[in-house]
Amino acid sequence: MGEFELIRNYFAAAPCAQGGEGIALGIGDDCALLALPAGEQLAISTDTLVAGVHFSDPCDPFLLGQRSLAVAVSDLAAMGANPLAFTLALTTPTVDADWLQPYALGLNLMAQRCGVGLVGGDTTRGPLSLTLTVFGRVPAGQALTRSGARPGDLLCVGGELGNAAGALPLVLGQRSADAAIAEPLLAHYWSPQPQLALGLALRGKATSAMDISDGLLADCGHIAKASSVSLLIERQQLPLSGALLAFVGDDQARVAALSGGDDYVLAFTLPSAELAPLQAAGWPIHVIGRVEAGQGVTLLDANGQDITPAIRGYQHFRETRE
Amino acid sequence: MGEFELIRNYFAAAPCAQGGEGIALGIGDDCALLALPAGEQLAISTDTLVAGVHFSDPCDPFLLGQRSLAVAVSDLAAMGANPLAFTLALTTPTVDADWLQPYALGLNLMAQRCGVGLVGGDTTRGPLSLTLTVFGRVPAGQALTRSGARPGDLLCVGGELGNAAGALPLVLGQRSADAAIAEPLLAHYWSPQPQLALGLALRGKATSAMDISDGLLADCGHIAKASSVSLLIERQQLPLSGALLAFVGDDQARVAALSGGDDYVLAFTLPSAELAPLQAAGWPIHVIGRVEAGQGVTLLDANGQDITPAIRGYQHFRETRE
Repeated sequence: MGEFELIRNYFAAAPCAQGGEGIALGIGDDCALLALPAGEQLAISTDTLVAGVHFSDPCDPFLLGQRSLAVAVSDLAAMGANPLAFTLALTTPTVDADWLQPYALGLNLMAQRCGVGLVGGDTTRGPLSLTLTVFGRVPAGQALTRSGARPGDLLCVGGELGNAAGALPLVLGQRSADAAIAEPLLAHYWSPQPQLALGLALRGKATSAMDISDGLLADCGHIAKASSVSLLIERQQLPLSGALLAFVGDDQARVAALSGGDDYVLAFTLPSAELAPLQAAGWPIHVIGRVEAGQGVTLLDANGQDITPAIRGYQHFRETRE
Repeated sequence: MGEFELIRNYFAAAPCAQGGEGIALGIGDDCALLALPAGEQLAISTDTLVAGVHFSDPCDPFLLGQRSLAVAVSDLAAMGANPLAFTLALTTPTVDADWLQPYALGLNLMAQRCGVGLVGGDTTRGPLSLTLTVFGRVPAGQALTRSGARPGDLLCVGGELGNAAGALPLVLGQRSADAAIAEPLLAHYWSPQPQLALGLALRGKATSAMDISDGLLADCGHIAKASSVSLLIERQQLPLSGALLAFVGDDQARVAALSGGDDYVLAFTLPSAELAPLQAAGWPIHVIGRVEAGQGVTLLDANGQDITPAIRGYQHFRETRE
């Protein structure tokens, strides 16, 4: 048995590999088999994280294990899907138990939290990278897509924005901060919580949804394009954490919220009549703008003036992180 | 729009991205959506190919496009699954149209041949590697697994063995050969044909199956272990191509067939009563041995003598290719 086969067995022995309902056959054969209840469809999303591009190398493998799965599962939340399973394609230059063990621990912890079972994958030798493919269930016709936003809808997000971008100088060791500031920001970066329950609550209510991974402005652009509408964002309505405001100040906090990315918070459009019942039920929904006829994304200041051009310049840095 | 987003659009525009029956939502949203007929399960397999490990770099991108999908789809054949869709996670150091265009052409050609539609994926910057995840449909309970082989079954393969391993010195430029020898060997290496139709024909007949990727001996070991049986392979019964025999001679051809890997031919066990009707129907089935009570894989010479130890030494090189 080769050492890479040992890795496969190691992951196969993890608790999350046991799977649950819907996993007819897990790790160890040519394919895994998933079963779906009648009337449901399978939602699928794939994300790759490359060392030195999407995370620093070296980094804490336990935290990477959590984060690598969370960012993939977040796409299931954005579709309103029930999480089911995932595969892991791990490429690593060496077989290092001191790295693999904490990575698998972090992965398993997030898998249990999200309710997904490891059903397969591949383990190969090469420069460190991770490709995770996640699977969820959604009743036919009820998935939340990007294409249903309508003029008159409210534009909403499911939580505070900009925390992960605010954490980046801490992650990269460029700045330090008191624990009261650093810990919530770093927790958001390393251990984002996919908004799976919110996604389910929005089924049949939100007209469009996605998760914010590339930054609010860029991701709202995807909804605007797919729905052929214009999205207006009110800069003063962005929900910001106390830690982010204390760390970088109001102006930079809003830049981070608009362009920073890695939030993994849901952005969605909602007919106004749907808002009050959802908020009354306790869902963390922040109205940040509205949908109008037209195209593209427009950022408005507190006076309703268009300040979009002033913020666009911050987006160029995205290119380096793809 | 970043250049990596352009790549995504490029693949999304490919004919194979249109998909067919069962693809409810393809590229462009947070998730793809697959629909399954009632009573069917989804078969899933993931394969990663790393530059410099699984293929030489540089290599012909058109041929790599074909091969990268074929090796993944072969796992669907091994399960007796109907091909449906796939995702591509492409990591590349630079955006080079002269590489991407022929790669996508080769990929699309194999996708059309196999009947799978591209439904999603990810495109990232980093050292060249490809992770393909393939999806197929199979009626619940009818998938061919590795675990059902029974004493008394015949051990069979679906075609000639060792051609891809025989091609390796040609691929690496270590040797040359006349076109009559080189072309069939290289075709097998670069453009393996997943035995999808054979997989379907074996449903309800074969007791176990897998595709030969790591070499006949190693892969038969997986069946023996999963089924808790002993597999006996008769060295003289291995089906070998004229090109391979002419290129490396009888002894080395049998070594390639036993240990070489990359054949992507099905290996399976079959109750003896099932053999004649399948062969009469024209399926290319070669009996190479039998199943007995016990464990492990035993290689027999023409006199029925156990020659397993003599061949095992050739397997060590596998480690370098994982």
